[in-house]
Amino acid sequence: MQATLALAQEIGYARLSIEAVAARAGAGKHTIYRRWPSKGLLFLDSLLSLNEPVLDYPDTGDVLADLREQIYAAVDLLASPPWGPLYRALIGEAQHDPAVAAALNDRFIRPQTDKTIARLKTAQDQGQVSPDLDLDLVMAILSGPLYFGLLITQESMTHDYIDRVLDALFTGMSPRH
Amino acid sequence: MQATLALAQEIGYARLSIEAVAARAGAGKHTIYRRWPSKGLLFLDSLLSLNEPVLDYPDTGDVLADLREQIYAAVDLLASPPWGPLYRALIGEAQHDPAVAAALNDRFIRPQTDKTIARLKTAQDQGQVSPDLDLDLVMAILSGPLYFGLLITQESMTHDYIDRVLDALFTGMSPRH
Repeated sequence: MQATLALAQEIGYARLSIEAVAARAGAGKHTIYRRWPSKGLLFLDSLLSLNEPVLDYPDTGDVLADLREQIYAAVDLLASPPWGPLYRALIGEAQHDPAVAAALNDRFIRPQTDKTIARLKTAQDQGQVSPDLDLDLVMAILSGPLYFGLLITQESMTHDYIDRVLDALFTGMSPRH
Repeated sequence: MQATLALAQEIGYARLSIEAVAARAGAGKHTIYRRWPSKGLLFLDSLLSLNEPVLDYPDTGDVLADLREQIYAAVDLLASPPWGPLYRALIGEAQHDPAVAAALNDRFIRPQTDKTIARLKTAQDQGQVSPDLDLDLVMAILSGPLYFGLLITQESMTHDYIDRVLDALFTGMSPRH
């Protein structure tokens, strides 16, 4: 998996191949294929092996501050070459490879969703978040704008932008707040 | 472009090629290449040629109702085979082809953003939306959850789900609303 990450950083995801990884790692191609039937699955596991604790939520007692920190960390990670392009390439792969999509959701998205819900549940219990907020929606609502920026407009997202999005999500679109 | 759409529906985006389109359309391959240097760009133009008015915003005077209608229409279109998989494939292409990403933004995302901002500006003027809402964020905030559902979790989105997301966005995450 280290060979995969090293190669991906050097040549980009498009040119990555299991053959090239096998050569770099000094491993048999078929050994790799048995465990990772596609480059998408190999790459996903390699990314996950980095086990980035920076994507966990702090709990300082201030949910807005903690959300900011976590989202800043995510966006900063994506802005550090080559992670943004690599994550985008992985998500691109997930659009036509259902096994990669399933693995991405099982191994990354759902655990991240659970962490997000847990942090917000604590905040609800402490009266910092509306008791009526449907926690099943929070991952889509909080990460949606980030995925829109990463995958669609592909513009770099500043900390200021994150602050403004969080402010709008907390305040709400209705008048009289 | 009709040949492109017909073929894409029949064989899927992955198997689409400019050669196959040329054969279907009875056109010269080089004629097509001159106008559309990649299958991504050809496919984007073909999708746009459908010119779906259903993606415009109604203005009934009730912004929440109008947003619901527009988003229901978008989600219903994506749920009608083969449009969801084809749009996802196009966005997948945009992750590694900057020309497709640029064309998608110029020819579809930005016009849709402008329409969204215009409808919400009207709503602001009529006191239906907070005067403090930063309209530059609304496309990311409103469409973000949809793209999260389309590209990441890849679960079908119901009208009820849309209602709940819009409710959360209008109400806001803060307590005491």
